[in-house]
Amino acid sequence: MYDVSAAAGFYHQKNVTITGGMGMIGSNLARALVDFGAKVTIVDAMLSQYGGNHFNISGYEDRLTLLPADIRDKAAVDNFIRDQHLLFNFAAQVSHNDSIEDPWSDAQINYLGHLNVLESARLNNPDVRIIYSGSRLQYGKVTTVPTHESHPLNPETPYAFNKTVAESMYRYYYRLHGINSVMFRITNPYGIRGQMKHSRYGIVNYFIRCAMQQEDISVFGDGSQIRDYIYIDDLVEALIAAGASDSAQGQVMNLGSGRGTSFREMAETVVRVVGSGSVSSIPWPDSYINVETGDFIADITLAREVLGWSPETSLEDGIRRTLQFYQRYGEHYTERA
Amino acid sequence: MYDVSAAAGFYHQKNVTITGGMGMIGSNLARALVDFGAKVTIVDAMLSQYGGNHFNISGYEDRLTLLPADIRDKAAVDNFIRDQHLLFNFAAQVSHNDSIEDPWSDAQINYLGHLNVLESARLNNPDVRIIYSGSRLQYGKVTTVPTHESHPLNPETPYAFNKTVAESMYRYYYRLHGINSVMFRITNPYGIRGQMKHSRYGIVNYFIRCAMQQEDISVFGDGSQIRDYIYIDDLVEALIAAGASDSAQGQVMNLGSGRGTSFREMAETVVRVVGSGSVSSIPWPDSYINVETGDFIADITLAREVLGWSPETSLEDGIRRTLQFYQRYGEHYTERA
Repeated sequence: MYDVSAAAGFYHQKNVTITGGMGMIGSNLARALVDFGAKVTIVDAMLSQYGGNHFNISGYEDRLTLLPADIRDKAAVDNFIRDQHLLFNFAAQVSHNDSIEDPWSDAQINYLGHLNVLESARLNNPDVRIIYSGSRLQYGKVTTVPTHESHPLNPETPYAFNKTVAESMYRYYYRLHGINSVMFRITNPYGIRGQMKHSRYGIVNYFIRCAMQQEDISVFGDGSQIRDYIYIDDLVEALIAAGASDSAQGQVMNLGSGRGTSFREMAETVVRVVGSGSVSSIPWPDSYINVETGDFIADITLAREVLGWSPETSLEDGIRRTLQFYQRYGEHYTERA
Repeated sequence: MYDVSAAAGFYHQKNVTITGGMGMIGSNLARALVDFGAKVTIVDAMLSQYGGNHFNISGYEDRLTLLPADIRDKAAVDNFIRDQHLLFNFAAQVSHNDSIEDPWSDAQINYLGHLNVLESARLNNPDVRIIYSGSRLQYGKVTTVPTHESHPLNPETPYAFNKTVAESMYRYYYRLHGINSVMFRITNPYGIRGQMKHSRYGIVNYFIRCAMQQEDISVFGDGSQIRDYIYIDDLVEALIAAGASDSAQGQVMNLGSGRGTSFREMAETVVRVVGSGSVSSIPWPDSYINVETGDFIADITLAREVLGWSPETSLEDGIRRTLQFYQRYGEHYTERA
């Protein structure tokens, strides 16, 4: 359990920009930082297929600044980066599958957009501290589980290529230009304020929706593949800790629950907690581009040690909290894409 | 020694496009392929700081098609890729140091430009065979010398990041979409038709120029770092072999001489062969961004086996042939940038 009260003092009156701040991770973080007294600016391009949602800042509209902008736009980046103490740079194309359909857009957002931010930081605000959200997919197929940060990177799809080259660029700007950053490789996040419109990313949230609507959840194959699902509150605590930590700067860290759950077990837990819906197995469709990475569990020793942080939320508890949120506010999250 | 006469039959009447075809590698290849009876189109953006030179196709102007175009321009790529049997995709930002100054342009040319080509091949000409020129800098600091293709990649600068992610994308398009390509990691090439305007890349050629002008060649430090210099004729033979080889498709191969020479020995060989100039040692300048990669020699076993190719030219012979070329045509290559 990370002691957020210490971080609260650190963030008080700090200028903090969160790109992609209307999405699940960004908005939950923004609300926490506003509560700490930070002067928060949310930058979001509100691209229709992703997770940006105005309801995510409901009740906070007057306590933060919302700036519609895209990190692909250099002038916009130059504008919003000035005078910021911290930049949580979460703007992203977040769908692994969409990157297969459209590798060009993925490269523009997930690599070139981040390069814009780094160049602008170097030129306009070299003292800014940047938090980057990479992905466990950078590892590709792993040979050891749990997987440590020193495991070779064998990315297999455009999404993973671009997350990897962007991380390389962050490390390079840190080493050569002294731009502070913390680079996370995040496992499968889920929880409140995530999109439930479609299944292309954020599968736990989508399954919660299906179960709430008494639908059957189809699991491809036997569903035995192990994943590491991290609840949003645990994730946000690690981000808060990273921004406030001097020793985290320049480090690459896994960010997950550190626990493995089979895909089928996750789906069954959703159905059990929600109390409706069902799970069935169907063969992998021929048309599905299956880039299966094998089992994955994050070794989170480094983040525990450097950040003094520890994930606390069981999958069951996380699903329950998510369910309670959507029982109340689900109408804002279910428009199907 | 690769038997080019067999390849000559393969290329006869084939449609071959060479991007970056006005540079050292592209133009030497173009001339060879025209002689084989290929229908060669050179695509070149003639960016002023790089190696494109109209004199490189002197005598061949009426035997090939020259198309001024940039691989960053999607419509242009769609236009030139149609009906081509082979595409030697050598358009590049070629300076490692320039990529440090301007990582954005490097990414646009060396990664996004190549992604344009791959997407266009998938959509417009999936049977095309593409030859890609990556770099030994993809390895970064190596732990074993000679270095095999299985050595981990630890690229350290934007140039190397972008060459690496582009190679990943070629392998991915081969695996997922069946787009044929041969991906080379090239060591330090030199020889006739290379630029001698400045020292930011193509250092052997630049040193030949300095020696021809009776200048002193300053070697930073003790010059003991080992490099693998490959003469252009050997390089071009490997490219010709790769385009004509079925079994090379989908493979990543080192392309070098397989021999190591210290930087100082290279400079001294230049002075000895040219018969003028001198070599002196000076300390590394403080301002120099020294991304020293350690000694490097390419393990070229794979290229030898797959291509039936072997580099034949000693450094001394290569420098002598280059000297003879510039003694005759040097005026076209020496305008200082």
